[in-house]
Amino acid sequence: MKKIRVAVFGAAGYAGEELLRILLRHPQAEITAVTSRKNAGEPVANVFPRYTGLDLNFVMPDVAAVSPQCDAAILALPHGLAAEYAKPLLEAGIRVFDISADFRLRSTAKYQEYYKTEHPAPELLKEAVYGLPELYREQLRNARLVACAGCYPTSSILPTVPLLRAGAVKKEGIVICSCSGVTGAGRKVDLPYIFPECNESLKAYGVVGHRHLPEIEQEFAVAAGVPEVAINFIPHLAPFNRGINSTILYDAAPGLTLERIGEIYAEAYGKEQFIRILPAKRTCDTKYVFMTNCCEIGYNLDPHTNKVIVTSAIDNLTKGAAGQAVQCMNIAFGIEEAAGLI
Amino acid sequence: MKKIRVAVFGAAGYAGEELLRILLRHPQAEITAVTSRKNAGEPVANVFPRYTGLDLNFVMPDVAAVSPQCDAAILALPHGLAAEYAKPLLEAGIRVFDISADFRLRSTAKYQEYYKTEHPAPELLKEAVYGLPELYREQLRNARLVACAGCYPTSSILPTVPLLRAGAVKKEGIVICSCSGVTGAGRKVDLPYIFPECNESLKAYGVVGHRHLPEIEQEFAVAAGVPEVAINFIPHLAPFNRGINSTILYDAAPGLTLERIGEIYAEAYGKEQFIRILPAKRTCDTKYVFMTNCCEIGYNLDPHTNKVIVTSAIDNLTKGAAGQAVQCMNIAFGIEEAAGLI
Amino acid sequence: MKKIRVAVFGAAGYAGEELLRILLRHPQAEITAVTSRKNAGEPVANVFPRYTGLDLNFVMPDVAAVSPQCDAAILALPHGLAAEYAKPLLEAGIRVFDISADFRLRSTAKYQEYYKTEHPAPELLKEAVYGLPELYREQLRNARLVACAGCYPTSSILPTVPLLRAGAVKKEGIVICSCSGVTGAGRKVDLPYIFPECNESLKAYGVVGHRHLPEIEQEFAVAAGVPEVAINFIPHLAPFNRGINSTILYDAAPGLTLERIGEIYAEAYGKEQFIRILPAKRTCDTKYVFMTNCCEIGYNLDPHTNKVIVTSAIDNLTKGAAGQAVQCMNIAFGIEEAAGLI
Amino acid sequence: MKKIRVAVFGAAGYAGEELLRILLRHPQAEITAVTSRKNAGEPVANVFPRYTGLDLNFVMPDVAAVSPQCDAAILALPHGLAAEYAKPLLEAGIRVFDISADFRLRSTAKYQEYYKTEHPAPELLKEAVYGLPELYREQLRNARLVACAGCYPTSSILPTVPLLRAGAVKKEGIVICSCSGVTGAGRKVDLPYIFPECNESLKAYGVVGHRHLPEIEQEFAVAAGVPEVAINFIPHLAPFNRGINSTILYDAAPGLTLERIGEIYAEAYGKEQFIRILPAKRTCDTKYVFMTNCCEIGYNLDPHTNKVIVTSAIDNLTKGAAGQAVQCMNIAFGIEEAAGLI
Repeated sequence: MKKIRVAVFGAAGYAGEELLRILLRHPQAEITAVTSRKNAGEPVANVFPRYTGLDLNFVMPDVAAVSPQCDAAILALPHGLAAEYAKPLLEAGIRVFDISADFRLRSTAKYQEYYKTEHPAPELLKEAVYGLPELYREQLRNARLVACAGCYPTSSILPTVPLLRAGAVKKEGIVICSCSGVTGAGRKVDLPYIFPECNESLKAYGVVGHRHLPEIEQEFAVAAGVPEVAINFIPHLAPFNRGINSTILYDAAPGLTLERIGEIYAEAYGKEQFIRILPAKRTCDTKYVFMTNCCEIGYNLDPHTNKVIVTSAIDNLTKGAAGQAVQCMNIAFGIEEAAGLI
Repeated sequence: MKKIRVAVFGAAGYAGEELLRILLRHPQAEITAVTSRKNAGEPVANVFPRYTGLDLNFVMPDVAAVSPQCDAAILALPHGLAAEYAKPLLEAGIRVFDISADFRLRSTAKYQEYYKTEHPAPELLKEAVYGLPELYREQLRNARLVACAGCYPTSSILPTVPLLRAGAVKKEGIVICSCSGVTGAGRKVDLPYIFPECNESLKAYGVVGHRHLPEIEQEFAVAAGVPEVAINFIPHLAPFNRGINSTILYDAAPGLTLERIGEIYAEAYGKEQFIRILPAKRTCDTKYVFMTNCCEIGYNLDPHTNKVIVTSAIDNLTKGAAGQAVQCMNIAFGIEEAAGLI
Repeated sequence: MKKIRVAVFGAAGYAGEELLRILLRHPQAEITAVTSRKNAGEPVANVFPRYTGLDLNFVMPDVAAVSPQCDAAILALPHGLAAEYAKPLLEAGIRVFDISADFRLRSTAKYQEYYKTEHPAPELLKEAVYGLPELYREQLRNARLVACAGCYPTSSILPTVPLLRAGAVKKEGIVICSCSGVTGAGRKVDLPYIFPECNESLKAYGVVGHRHLPEIEQEFAVAAGVPEVAINFIPHLAPFNRGINSTILYDAAPGLTLERIGEIYAEAYGKEQFIRILPAKRTCDTKYVFMTNCCEIGYNLDPHTNKVIVTSAIDNLTKGAAGQAVQCMNIAFGIEEAAGLI
Repeated sequence: MKKIRVAVFGAAGYAGEELLRILLRHPQAEITAVTSRKNAGEPVANVFPRYTGLDLNFVMPDVAAVSPQCDAAILALPHGLAAEYAKPLLEAGIRVFDISADFRLRSTAKYQEYYKTEHPAPELLKEAVYGLPELYREQLRNARLVACAGCYPTSSILPTVPLLRAGAVKKEGIVICSCSGVTGAGRKVDLPYIFPECNESLKAYGVVGHRHLPEIEQEFAVAAGVPEVAINFIPHLAPFNRGINSTILYDAAPGLTLERIGEIYAEAYGKEQFIRILPAKRTCDTKYVFMTNCCEIGYNLDPHTNKVIVTSAIDNLTKGAAGQAVQCMNIAFGIEEAAGLI
């Protein structure tokens, strides 16, 4: 069988590195180009020494040069830039899987509000499919443009949507407390991210108006069947490399029981190979999803405040970025959804 | 001036080690005994090699033997056991500063509910002063029995009480998400606490009914002037040694502004040397309170949900345990409150 | 093709967990039994929650019950115990791949000296093949009993043997300084291994007479063509989960050049898929071999002392334990050597 | 008593932060200026939030402006720059304690060889005292210019000099393997130092010709009474914040015993308050010197190779930088040597 030929744009960061790890052992895909403006011309091993000996060089992100050799492009580029590349790639008939935020928000106004710039390609938004396979699998089949879900949103939306759809929790007053490992900030060379600043440190940041907030609210609103919801999303930076833990609190609907929550999750995700529902009352641990494409979900019900308390864990670089992009790609091309991911 | 002679009970754990660090350079206190049932007879340096050369041996926790040489006893013992020692120590005229939970809850029913055992010394409860100097300073003067506030409670109560007292936030629906370093679990030899299990891992635990919950609710209720409040407290274990970060969400009272929150904190804590209020909108970082007796507080107001979002940071072993005990002791004995703590 | 049916003995530790990770995606092997005396009867997911949903329970290490369903047994058992299981397994016609130290030393006297007990099965020693494929590949074909090389020894022997064989360095005065992550100590519940004791700590241990010393010296002597060599091996415990870095110093033979060292390594390992020789003067980093079966080797020559300075890096759980065992198994069964390992 | 008025040049880095920590509680010193070209005009708390409320602003490193208010200047500046400031400070009658490398090497040729630039102030070299109090205490009294010993050198020279002086070990063939925490690289914003690159990573670097090598060799030669010695010094970067562990191997002189080594150390350092000799055969742990000015030394003798194996541990920011500078300053000014350091 002919393999999917994949170009990775912006391959020199952590999501790019994870894409390499996954795609190099993907049985039905092959990497035909990896781009890096900064490292063009260099072998991949210059940036990722574990790939010493791999016959693959970074090239410039030149769509005309890259597109004849690829069927799919995965964009691990900064927002804004991603949309610029998506346009000519789509025109060249390449399917695009964008890990940036450019096509996640259906509202260009929200994009402008949170990203402080006009949307670079609003005409493409209606075609973009939100890349969260467990919720949008049918739309992803044959999709040409996929806006892969963000890392924090994946960890929040997957556990929440079934509860909202079932009316098990109220759509008002949802609070999400998330803790992310430092790769979540990207391969960014900046004082707050050097080792002695992060190690032995834990802090909240972006507690009002984080860029992932509108993405989360958008999908919560869809699940609740309303135009808008307003929630609180509080991210924290914690001293480890990979992983996001999200703890989410909801007001329970009247009469909700722990058993019912278990049933709702079993119905929603019982057949999902990348979602693991823990037994009632257990909590997640990021180490159990480390370097996997799995989202782990635990649930509890606090009788004294009548809150549903859900915890979720993902690996931000796998299910939160590269793994999810490959999962979406597999679906779009009609091959085994888990190919390369186990 | 005569120094306060201090006995530390249960000195072989992390709170004990921190007490040693503080007391050894305290200008007006001297350590006259350190007890450890397991290490009795051994020099302190056997357990804490940094004190090689220190002329101090662990002794058995024998109140009759220890009490003639001390004016104050700091109890770093498990709950239940602490109360057993408090009784004879008080009878011997020794002031007791208890780091355990035994005298924190005014309700013996709550104690029994959360600690699964009858209260070991209910007759002492009415005398016990809650050991949080910024809120109970007057009661601590000349106190004989001090129930030092717990680590998570300290990080939650200090930032919350001024807001509740001022009516700036609602007493319903408060959510506390806390992350603690691993010393918070004590010097416990148990599989979940070995390095490879904790490192590169972050998880919530005790999300319903954690033992620190009734202590937090008790003090919130006092501040709100009501018999009871019900809140959610979600602790997490994070891969670092020392520190607690708490992020707390409240529903703002109508008309509350960011400026008003700043004023409330300035009024409450402007003169406190161990509380540091950050400029509006900034968030705390545990590394800024590492090995200090300080509680750092940051505040924000989310206009789109009308929530007040407060972050706080303490060092769980200092302000959350040993430092706070010494601060209480200093007040009880009428010496400089910060002695030994800077 | 019929898959190799594999039983893992002692599967509840870190090497066992890594064996599960590798074997579950091995295209030509299947796990037919995992034993754990302590967890017998429980699903694997009780110990390793990432395998929730996996239909596999721990069983008692009962050779009679296990052997009919397996072709190979991988022993991740303590030394002493491993030999006890090896005997009946071999008698039942099962090939044995032992990760313990029981069959590594050809001298029973050395075994007794370093392990403080008589060798449990000296009659099997002559059949045992030392499980370091890059050096003993031919002997491993069809081997029935394989003594997989230890973690520190793997990181020391692979870079050293080519230099000794070529006479490029002197066999006297070799010094090895190694640093291991904490999983190297096993899944051991003991005070020195709890998080707050290991984190922010680095220390040497076993600096005289570590148990891996005679294994290293044995293979160095073979390579040098002499009965015995005496070296110094200094292990350190460092605060990370996985990986061993070894820095090795040798006296250069007269006239040795950096180029010649490069040639020697290229000749020895140029075709090895699990050995990566760095360009001259570069040093290894454990993160570049993390969760791979690769051994990375860097070399340098110090003109002012005429020392060859070599660094090597492996993942102690993969190339240092589970990966190596699977690599040996693949060779013994005549299948693709890298199966399951990439 | 009049306090020593201290200016800290280059106060915005990690050594500067540690100097602030120490000097702010020094009973006989006060900080009169802290300089930072980049942060001039800003309060110290902008860079080090733990000092919120401290009434101290960074100023430009202007000697004319700073010198009237100070008796001592501690230079935490890059090499090259430090010498430029030392000159006018000395001319203004200020005692200078330089943490950089500018005045450590007595040979300008070595300086040029290792620092790739001409020595910026060779005329000052003869006056400079090497700032390692345990070895140069008498020369430090009333010293005007002190070249504080480097971090790696302190950890190597303190344990080695007594052995060389006593003729207990050979001066040839000494090997030092050191591991440093990441603050040893300074507060440097560079890709190799961001958290995800350092965490879960350990590597050697600078294995030939590290800049601390000639400093170590210089002091070893002095102790051995010879013009030159040649050794191997192998530094490693390890994933923790603070601390250096050095493991040093020497060829024992004929007849040397473990007891004799103990005696040598007892004679050399028995009265030193900042040196802690462990019982024979024990090894050091960086955590036991964390945030102290102590150097811990452990010793062993390997009978099978006749090597002396010494381990040492210091906190690189305290005894390896700021603490040592303050210790030197205390001696130079004739006050209690340990003032501010315990």
